[in-house]
Amino acid sequence: MKRGRFIALEGGEGTGKSTQARLLADALRNRGLEVELTREPGGTPGAEAIRKLLLDPPEGGWNPRAEALLFAAARSDHVEKRIRPALAAGHWVVCDRFVDSSRAYQGGAGGLGDAAVSALHDFGSEGLRPDLTVLIVASQETVVARLAARDEGVSDAIGGRSADYHAQVADSFLSLAEADPAGFAVIDGNGTPEEVQVRVMAAVAELLEADT
Amino acid sequence: MKRGRFIALEGGEGTGKSTQARLLADALRNRGLEVELTREPGGTPGAEAIRKLLLDPPEGGWNPRAEALLFAAARSDHVEKRIRPALAAGHWVVCDRFVDSSRAYQGGAGGLGDAAVSALHDFGSEGLRPDLTVLIVASQETVVARLAARDEGVSDAIGGRSADYHAQVADSFLSLAEADPAGFAVIDGNGTPEEVQVRVMAAVAELLEADT
Repeated sequence: MKRGRFIALEGGEGTGKSTQARLLADALRNRGLEVELTREPGGTPGAEAIRKLLLDPPEGGWNPRAEALLFAAARSDHVEKRIRPALAAGHWVVCDRFVDSSRAYQGGAGGLGDAAVSALHDFGSEGLRPDLTVLIVASQETVVARLAARDEGVSDAIGGRSADYHAQVADSFLSLAEADPAGFAVIDGNGTPEEVQVRVMAAVAELLEADT
Repeated sequence: MKRGRFIALEGGEGTGKSTQARLLADALRNRGLEVELTREPGGTPGAEAIRKLLLDPPEGGWNPRAEALLFAAARSDHVEKRIRPALAAGHWVVCDRFVDSSRAYQGGAGGLGDAAVSALHDFGSEGLRPDLTVLIVASQETVVARLAARDEGVSDAIGGRSADYHAQVADSFLSLAEADPAGFAVIDGNGTPEEVQVRVMAAVAELLEADT
């Protein structure tokens, strides 16, 4: 059995990752592929339980180190119970956020550094990397409009952090992509979902051609 | 303000750690010291929430790496919000289990190795060590009798593991103590709680004399 491909969608809040993850999974299914659409933090019952602790923390919040350890624990469960078995069964995995979110949020904006956050991933998930990370970058104007249109807003413990924090997240994502051009595709997230999807499909075309 | 002292009680299930932690805290209070009696996993609302996930895990259980990350996250919260502030205020801290439980259970019996588990502690809690770790060692006969006398038994996800696992935990604790004779006091846990307490008080006498 040929191993499936693993694609992660990354970006800040309101860049359209979740919408694009769904559209990508649909497009891959339409080509006859078996697709596992999942998200982080979460994706398994254990990781979803950790997600609740992360997004609705106890009084005083989690310190950045505890937060990074919880993300790594959730990812370890998700990789072991869902992502690796799906890839081994030949399925494609489309994941809304993966380790590069931890690297950009906790490592970059949170100040823990990339080496420490990557070491937690090496420990917890034996360093599993996506075959391709699609980083969606949208203008401040696009992001503000999308967040305003959401029913629930971005009121969780991480989405609700300062504009400075989110600007550092965006910078960190770009630095990660620049350092690994073969592993990342940086996509313009401005425009309609359909317009953005055309760009995402162009980015995954090479993987698709190699496999089908 | 003089920094307080930090004493951890360690040992396998049924060795009498929790009873001795309470008796030690009472004895220290009777000498006029301010004492914070706490336990792991737990000790803060966040760490207690993680404790629930650890002792009542999702279907299939946590893999050993996820488990070690969760313990390190809980300890990070506990150290930051409760242990370090108490020590800084000049209080003594008596803790029922601390990092050496992670080293013996996940590192030794769980097979992750001491270096990996210690690295998680260095990251999460900046390597905080107790001033003294009191390791209580009891005979198999004593342990079986104590566990049988508990109302709830030892039915949680970790206490309920195989006899082999618990034998490896006991061996690992002894190895840690042998490697650090200045940091550990190994106490005979057989006999009545009062008999064992005399031994615990003898072990902490040096710290007490230095401070009072």
